[in-house]
Amino acid sequence: MSKRYRLLLSCLDQPGIVAAVSRFVADREGNIMEANQYHDPISGMFFMRYIIESPSANMAEKEFADAFGQITERYDMSWRLSIASQKRKVLLMVSKLDHCLTDILYRWKCGDIQLDIPCVISNHDDLRDYVEWHGIPYHLVPVPKDDAGKQAAFEKTAEIIDKYVPDTIVLARYMQILPPWMCAKYPNQVINIHHSFLPSFKGAKPYHQAKARGVKLTGATCHYVTEDLDAGPIIEQDVIRISHHNSVEETVRLGKDVERSVLARGLRYHLEDRVLVHENKTVIFN
Amino acid sequence: MSKRYRLLLSCLDQPGIVAAVSRFVADREGNIMEANQYHDPISGMFFMRYIIESPSANMAEKEFADAFGQITERYDMSWRLSIASQKRKVLLMVSKLDHCLTDILYRWKCGDIQLDIPCVISNHDDLRDYVEWHGIPYHLVPVPKDDAGKQAAFEKTAEIIDKYVPDTIVLARYMQILPPWMCAKYPNQVINIHHSFLPSFKGAKPYHQAKARGVKLTGATCHYVTEDLDAGPIIEQDVIRISHHNSVEETVRLGKDVERSVLARGLRYHLEDRVLVHENKTVIFN
Amino acid sequence: MSKRYRLLLSCLDQPGIVAAVSRFVADREGNIMEANQYHDPISGMFFMRYIIESPSANMAEKEFADAFGQITERYDMSWRLSIASQKRKVLLMVSKLDHCLTDILYRWKCGDIQLDIPCVISNHDDLRDYVEWHGIPYHLVPVPKDDAGKQAAFEKTAEIIDKYVPDTIVLARYMQILPPWMCAKYPNQVINIHHSFLPSFKGAKPYHQAKARGVKLTGATCHYVTEDLDAGPIIEQDVIRISHHNSVEETVRLGKDVERSVLARGLRYHLEDRVLVHENKTVIFN
Amino acid sequence: MSKRYRLLLSCLDQPGIVAAVSRFVADREGNIMEANQYHDPISGMFFMRYIIESPSANMAEKEFADAFGQITERYDMSWRLSIASQKRKVLLMVSKLDHCLTDILYRWKCGDIQLDIPCVISNHDDLRDYVEWHGIPYHLVPVPKDDAGKQAAFEKTAEIIDKYVPDTIVLARYMQILPPWMCAKYPNQVINIHHSFLPSFKGAKPYHQAKARGVKLTGATCHYVTEDLDAGPIIEQDVIRISHHNSVEETVRLGKDVERSVLARGLRYHLEDRVLVHENKTVIFN
Repeated sequence: MSKRYRLLLSCLDQPGIVAAVSRFVADREGNIMEANQYHDPISGMFFMRYIIESPSANMAEKEFADAFGQITERYDMSWRLSIASQKRKVLLMVSKLDHCLTDILYRWKCGDIQLDIPCVISNHDDLRDYVEWHGIPYHLVPVPKDDAGKQAAFEKTAEIIDKYVPDTIVLARYMQILPPWMCAKYPNQVINIHHSFLPSFKGAKPYHQAKARGVKLTGATCHYVTEDLDAGPIIEQDVIRISHHNSVEETVRLGKDVERSVLARGLRYHLEDRVLVHENKTVIFN
Repeated sequence: MSKRYRLLLSCLDQPGIVAAVSRFVADREGNIMEANQYHDPISGMFFMRYIIESPSANMAEKEFADAFGQITERYDMSWRLSIASQKRKVLLMVSKLDHCLTDILYRWKCGDIQLDIPCVISNHDDLRDYVEWHGIPYHLVPVPKDDAGKQAAFEKTAEIIDKYVPDTIVLARYMQILPPWMCAKYPNQVINIHHSFLPSFKGAKPYHQAKARGVKLTGATCHYVTEDLDAGPIIEQDVIRISHHNSVEETVRLGKDVERSVLARGLRYHLEDRVLVHENKTVIFN
Repeated sequence: MSKRYRLLLSCLDQPGIVAAVSRFVADREGNIMEANQYHDPISGMFFMRYIIESPSANMAEKEFADAFGQITERYDMSWRLSIASQKRKVLLMVSKLDHCLTDILYRWKCGDIQLDIPCVISNHDDLRDYVEWHGIPYHLVPVPKDDAGKQAAFEKTAEIIDKYVPDTIVLARYMQILPPWMCAKYPNQVINIHHSFLPSFKGAKPYHQAKARGVKLTGATCHYVTEDLDAGPIIEQDVIRISHHNSVEETVRLGKDVERSVLARGLRYHLEDRVLVHENKTVIFN
Repeated sequence: MSKRYRLLLSCLDQPGIVAAVSRFVADREGNIMEANQYHDPISGMFFMRYIIESPSANMAEKEFADAFGQITERYDMSWRLSIASQKRKVLLMVSKLDHCLTDILYRWKCGDIQLDIPCVISNHDDLRDYVEWHGIPYHLVPVPKDDAGKQAAFEKTAEIIDKYVPDTIVLARYMQILPPWMCAKYPNQVINIHHSFLPSFKGAKPYHQAKARGVKLTGATCHYVTEDLDAGPIIEQDVIRISHHNSVEETVRLGKDVERSVLARGLRYHLEDRVLVHENKTVIFN
């Protein structure tokens, strides 16, 4: 039986890496179905992604790791091998706005995106019915305004997260700022959708900021969450045209479409192992 | 003989404006060929653009102004009537980069954009041959680094400008910052193309800034110049997709295409009287 | 109490129409909030759309019609006045694919698009649960392959439609071809979403056709249904980039996003009275 | 001294190709700077592009070919090795419209695209001055309407082409249809820009066809010329939005921008060895 694997790796570039890795794969009767690589001339880093089809016996993760160790040590590589058919666990966090949640649930339901959704966490109860109709557990964790209350709420949140052990957490318009300790706890695991074309209009009410500045395009940015608000590595962005006659309310409505599509694309890149992070920037193999 | 006119006006909105103005036009046997209007619910302002076809005797500017006075006083209007076939004088300012200049000269030469180019002013001599091949005067005004030299250079520049009495000045990648007194001297007359999606990456080297932040789109912004650097009213913007593998040099090259097309569109809107400025924002009727 | 009205009209162009109509509106204390007009130089036709705010007593539809009769007769106009806040009845028809249905239901549920959905008709039972969860009646009308069966099915369908008296029928990926008599029965009332950039790839399996031709973009087209398959007046179109490496299945998935957004925009234009049809083409005031 | 090479190859897919080729490259101290590959599941074909940096002594084309022979025979490969810094000879053919010519000359002059232009051939004399100002020979070959005259003209054209031995011929809005024998003579070497989104609106006057159909987007297509008019392998396409109010003349003007940018991108892909043709379709590695 043949299986599909994804191999992601990065290291300082040196001649012979491609030959060494592709020979290793060929020796296991692996066929390289897709290949992407990038040599960054500034940092000297090398990034690579292989989709490999191989008899599963020959690529068993444990055995592969042991054998691959020789190469990874020689080149001092960071690497990850994953089985393409294995669905990731993606925990969703939302507040009251449901366009991103609805979109992800739709894609999940009809099989257009491969993931498991262990639960939804929200600071409001508004979306419970819709989520539970899909057979997904819904956890309400209200977030008070005071510091102590906030701290308790986020501890409670982390507790729920850790119970489900998700691979990824998506802030699908979750309108709270995660505390630094949470950002640090899940590095490059928390994906946010911000409703502006970053770095323009960070922080609160970006559509109001955009209207006030009179820009002619508005956008959305999907990025990894870091301690620095709206300044983490950008995965995907897009814009739509707006006009003087669009009110803030209309801009919000128009923006929803680009938010949900940018988040869907960004999340897909992440789940298909197309994203490598290096120094607050991403390499996207798509 | 029939002529085409453009009527632009703005005032605080009140019922009856459209009826009063369209009746006035109809009384002069004018036919309204295009009409745009916008009521801004925040400021309560009303903006309007008419393209009128009328026997020229009935719309003579002087007579029109006198007769129109009654309406404009009643509604406290700002307004302008222009003859559509009358070309505007657009003075170009450049440095060494020629993609925007080349593009404007091409559109002018083949008649795709209606304007006269009285002269080009530059702080370098590099583009003289190409400009003079088109039969357009070229003025070299070097801009020294010291304050006194700069002041003298800009006085010289203003002198040249005032000799040609242009309607519009285009900074077609002119790599100097105009002094405040020049910005104030030509309000809503100086158009700049900035090589980023404003308000992201104001000031110097925006493509370097964009690369450093790792954005997935880069853009260009056409705006009126005000004393506030890169913060004037935005006329037009657009973006293109970039990737981790695009070096700064490639981003510069890719950006040229969007710069020239954004400038061409913005300049066209301006020349076709499609732009009304209100409180650092534009109403664009297109 | 003030109300918003939409006035749509078309006629052969003549001087004075704008003055006559705007005077009529002003006489009823109407304020013209939005105005669009278009003079087609080929056909000589004039098209106009006004958004009018007026005390409701002064614009009562019956009284307005009587009084407006004088103007419409003089200019031989086609016209329609509608109350902006009055929701249209939009009947949806689907088969098995649910991305367009899901999208419309989402926008309807959250109030982003103004319409009432009296029922959904389908030739399959697959989407019943999802539709009924929204509290909307679901009618199954299977369509057999034989001519007599087809005829009976469409008679049954027309019967259901006529019971609900919808303003508009949306074929949200309804995979059957309406018979000519049905197309004729509901002129400019039936909106279809076709999954290609028309006129490329009419008819069945357009994504397969696109893949076979090796195009680099694929699109979607929202149009009014006429007896001529996929050849009715186009309301809206858009495209997305595809690549050699996208399989037909991936193209189908990518296409869904553009289909739903094109349909949503086209339907919105239709419901906001932004569409005028003339000789198999549309004038879109947006 | 190190040099950059581009290696393009295609063959029926089999396990071990990547390993064999990358090992061959590594043995010559080559470093693979960019890699793209595609396995087509329908045809079973494998396509690959490497950018290799290697000491030039180790990759001398003759020696490489001899040594590489073993691999290419084993896998029955089509392949090509080119030196990245070696400029291709691109012969341009035009008629009267100059936007594509102007654009290519601009990019060539400022070094944004790497090519040599041995000469321009035209069936009109209009663009001679502009071309010769750039120091490029201009050959006038009028094309009469009668068959014998046409045949003679194209024989004369082929004679000129064969004198310059170009790598590529670009029909930069050359408004004549090449005879089948010329299409066959330069397979996948003649690039055309067609002013519609193919397969919509093949043949003459596509903007008129587009206006008549009432489409909401218009486009341009860059493709290799084959005997089948406007049906050759598509390299690149793009569209722009148009509206009911755009006349054919305005559509022509708007279309120019997308024509020139699509041609520039398509030509770049071709010159950078990013295009592989298989069964009337292209694989584009970009």
